[in-house]
Amino acid sequence: MDSKVVGILGGGQLGRMLVEAANRLNIKTVILEEGTSAPAKQINAVSEHINGSFTDPVKIRELAKKCDVLTVEIEHVDTDALKAVQKDTGVEIHPSPDTLAIIKDKYSQKQHLARGHIAVAESVSVDATECALLSVGDKFGYPYMLKSRTLAYDGRGNFVVKSKSDVKEALEALRDVPLYAERWAPFAKELAVMVVRSINGQVFAYSTVETVQKDNICHIVYAPARVSDSTRAKAQILAKDAVSTFTGAGIFGVEMFLLPDGQLLVNEIAPRPHNSGHYTIDACVTSQFEAHIRAITGLPMPNNFASLSTPNTHAIMLNVLGADKPNGELEICTRALSTPNASVYLYGKTTRPGRKMGHINIVSESMSDCERKLAYIRGEASDVAGATSTDTKSEQPLVGVIMGSDSDLPVMAAACDILKDFNVPFEVTIVSAHRTPQRMANYAIEAPKRGIRCIIAGAGGAAHLPGMVAAMTPLPVIGVPVKAHILDGVDSLYSIVQMPRGVPVATVAINNSTNAALLAVRILGAYDPKYLTAMEKYQSDMEDGVLVKAEKLEAEGYEEYLKNKNKK
Amino acid sequence: MDSKVVGILGGGQLGRMLVEAANRLNIKTVILEEGTSAPAKQINAVSEHINGSFTDPVKIRELAKKCDVLTVEIEHVDTDALKAVQKDTGVEIHPSPDTLAIIKDKYSQKQHLARGHIAVAESVSVDATECALLSVGDKFGYPYMLKSRTLAYDGRGNFVVKSKSDVKEALEALRDVPLYAERWAPFAKELAVMVVRSINGQVFAYSTVETVQKDNICHIVYAPARVSDSTRAKAQILAKDAVSTFTGAGIFGVEMFLLPDGQLLVNEIAPRPHNSGHYTIDACVTSQFEAHIRAITGLPMPNNFASLSTPNTHAIMLNVLGADKPNGELEICTRALSTPNASVYLYGKTTRPGRKMGHINIVSESMSDCERKLAYIRGEASDVAGATSTDTKSEQPLVGVIMGSDSDLPVMAAACDILKDFNVPFEVTIVSAHRTPQRMANYAIEAPKRGIRCIIAGAGGAAHLPGMVAAMTPLPVIGVPVKAHILDGVDSLYSIVQMPRGVPVATVAINNSTNAALLAVRILGAYDPKYLTAMEKYQSDMEDGVLVKAEKLEAEGYEEYLKNKNKK
Repeated sequence: MDSKVVGILGGGQLGRMLVEAANRLNIKTVILEEGTSAPAKQINAVSEHINGSFTDPVKIRELAKKCDVLTVEIEHVDTDALKAVQKDTGVEIHPSPDTLAIIKDKYSQKQHLARGHIAVAESVSVDATECALLSVGDKFGYPYMLKSRTLAYDGRGNFVVKSKSDVKEALEALRDVPLYAERWAPFAKELAVMVVRSINGQVFAYSTVETVQKDNICHIVYAPARVSDSTRAKAQILAKDAVSTFTGAGIFGVEMFLLPDGQLLVNEIAPRPHNSGHYTIDACVTSQFEAHIRAITGLPMPNNFASLSTPNTHAIMLNVLGADKPNGELEICTRALSTPNASVYLYGKTTRPGRKMGHINIVSESMSDCERKLAYIRGEASDVAGATSTDTKSEQPLVGVIMGSDSDLPVMAAACDILKDFNVPFEVTIVSAHRTPQRMANYAIEAPKRGIRCIIAGAGGAAHLPGMVAAMTPLPVIGVPVKAHILDGVDSLYSIVQMPRGVPVATVAINNSTNAALLAVRILGAYDPKYLTAMEKYQSDMEDGVLVKAEKLEAEGYEEYLKNKNKK
Repeated sequence: MDSKVVGILGGGQLGRMLVEAANRLNIKTVILEEGTSAPAKQINAVSEHINGSFTDPVKIRELAKKCDVLTVEIEHVDTDALKAVQKDTGVEIHPSPDTLAIIKDKYSQKQHLARGHIAVAESVSVDATECALLSVGDKFGYPYMLKSRTLAYDGRGNFVVKSKSDVKEALEALRDVPLYAERWAPFAKELAVMVVRSINGQVFAYSTVETVQKDNICHIVYAPARVSDSTRAKAQILAKDAVSTFTGAGIFGVEMFLLPDGQLLVNEIAPRPHNSGHYTIDACVTSQFEAHIRAITGLPMPNNFASLSTPNTHAIMLNVLGADKPNGELEICTRALSTPNASVYLYGKTTRPGRKMGHINIVSESMSDCERKLAYIRGEASDVAGATSTDTKSEQPLVGVIMGSDSDLPVMAAACDILKDFNVPFEVTIVSAHRTPQRMANYAIEAPKRGIRCIIAGAGGAAHLPGMVAAMTPLPVIGVPVKAHILDGVDSLYSIVQMPRGVPVATVAINNSTNAALLAVRILGAYDPKYLTAMEKYQSDMEDGVLVKAEKLEAEGYEEYLKNKNKK
């Protein structure tokens, strides 16, 4: 695609996946890494690879001579050497050595972000003495985090100082490294956003994802994060703002803490592809690796970069770590291969317990489906690949059934029966427009964020509930007029159906909550073929039912038929 | 993943994409191809590759010694040599040499399929004489197809004999090759299905796609094919049946003709990955290449193999052919890179006019969106990547607005205005329950197949249209009671809303087609965030509108306000 040759410092799995993306675009890559069989070298048959350390200035210079652009798959490189090489050879380096220098020292990274008005946990530099550590405890309280400023990754170089008595152990654990301390962030979840910065400084954010760590190593990633839309949007903005404080092109992984009060803090930034972005290979049309290659070579970016393949794509990424017994990790890979919509990526490494050997991506239209498949792959469920579950209780509800009073329940129960028959995940509750107006407002506003696709509301008499809910939600609302003691339900019908222009309520017949539920199934079926097919079958069964009766009537004659029917 | 080493006869782009899939699974591949820089060798840094022809028995034997399984990226191999090697070395070969032998001779392929009761065009073997060709003309009529039995691909080796006077030219064009003739198939479309056969004989079909040829070379692939669901299903069954007649594991490309009467004929079968399956890289979780690798190494298959990433995924594949000026083909690649949801794949070949240099995949939730993006990429539209178009006319309609009579149009026009405002692609027409009952039935039944998500039906008086349409479609139907001359529209309201249990109509207020359209937008918004967001904005604008009036009323006082309002 481009005549630029890209040199990569480091030849592990991130380099390997960068090479794969570059191969697809006919972009030549050259790897600097020890040995000849590094993961990135295996899929890259050029003769120019360099055998050496990515921290060796001489080797970096050798690489620069063969390339137009240098980039990194790891930030722990000799940035002074990079700067000198850039000055001497004119090679482009992305991200810039300045950016790498700031980021690879975690304390200077935090200081830099704080200066850029990016929300981070408060941190201080600290000497490696008991006295200094105790004075941090006085300042921040306990617990606090003691961290190595350099060479820290996958949780290595972190120590939680829980009380004064931990101080000695902390100094022992983090010997011989420069230290800093951070105020404890009692996070509810860890989020991450991949951000790519183009050569002309534009930033594009991928979806906000949720990362789950195990033994300080990224274990599972949920994409998108299982948090509210507004939190996801705020995290993307924070991530873009954070990346905008740096110079140079390329992809950045921005890890964040979500605090219980909804506040977001940047935890740390990786100036390279990141484990939390591996889901993009399957869930996005342009992966984080291709995004990086395009960014650093100046190739065009799609104008809507973050686009998942569809708005309904959900994904889970599971790291494949080396098992205790040799190749034991292939068990989960084998189960993944037999699971629909799961993909296996292995990195060509020799197995070692706890080593990142590969990852598995699962994509689906619903997160609950991803979660079921994950349980099967991890061996926690014996279910045949968890492909389809009829257990509607555990799933995120798609339809909300609400009524103004429990006196409406006998009428509304028929709707619930129908939804059960169609295996539609639903919820049912009481929400009164007149007695619980605030609850009603919350319900209406929160519903789309919780994944509800459609609301069925039953009400009698003045029957304000359906219209008021419709006024406060963008979702389709189906109104069931419930017949009260007088006026035969016509009062409820008029209240529900005669809405003013601007706020529609899909009204069904008086007391006919059966039809409300069938309408809800049709609304789901407009986009989900599963429900469309089920509705077609329901209609054809209805037809068959009438035909059976017609046959009986024709055979028995109308007098006999009526007699038999009255007997029942 | 597996300790089996796979040898591939041929190192072109199909081999390259097989290697990429194998790399992801840690499966070692070795290539037999002339030269050291063949596309498949470039991304495969092993020392065992063989420099030689995939038709050379000695080289095949050399390859077999290094591998556990042999496979092909091209069927024109020496199948006798393969059989001998298999016998001598015990190497597994997929697909089986017998299958390759049958398929590589197109006439024997046709005979084999016909014996297996697979629908194919009638064909006869023919000598290379004028007399023989004329007698075929007597038998089949003109035009008919004269084809080379062997070494034919990308349309090379085909000649259309249009009349008796073509016979001489035909013999000249197809000199020195064994010939056969086929009855002319006046096809309406060309379809194709990728089928993978597992090592234990199970067959799985991908979606039915539509291929468009240009100068006898596959040019564009539409996935799924733009034909009815039933035709797509029939094509998958025919393709699976056809592949089931062969032995050995692997992926097969089955090309078919769709005749104007709906009949399907198998045109030819490729016993390997196929150009018409390149869309699977982006549109499916498991690509045709990974499917082949898994099949021939005996790795598990997902139990729902054909699954596109979502049921709403549509894709277009465009081949990138070498341009007349050097690297001229990179122009379309550059435009593709700036198009959201498009991916570029280049094969690492030196450019030559007409050569397959790479391909571009476009995926989207709608085929019309894919088509718009294709037009931009091909330079036929200057539109910024065709990302979002406000031209709702060209798009596949999502909402159908129908009414019983043109006298309902003044009321129903408000619905159309709203749909326009929301940029919802829609269609509007007259369908009368009482005067055009058959048209109504067709409309209701065809609507979901045409991609309609929701129907708005307006009717007055007896007002049967909404309920009857609802009875014949599984889609949600919104009913608008139109006020007739008497009874104030209450007759229409009752007719529409009081549907029996089993068939719901979402009824809105009398004459309020505005709300019907807003309800349709909410139904689309239940699954498409674009419309959900637009509805939220609409609601917030309504709120602002009222607040402005409230402010004015408070400022002017109610008497002045009323006076000003009455003036207008």
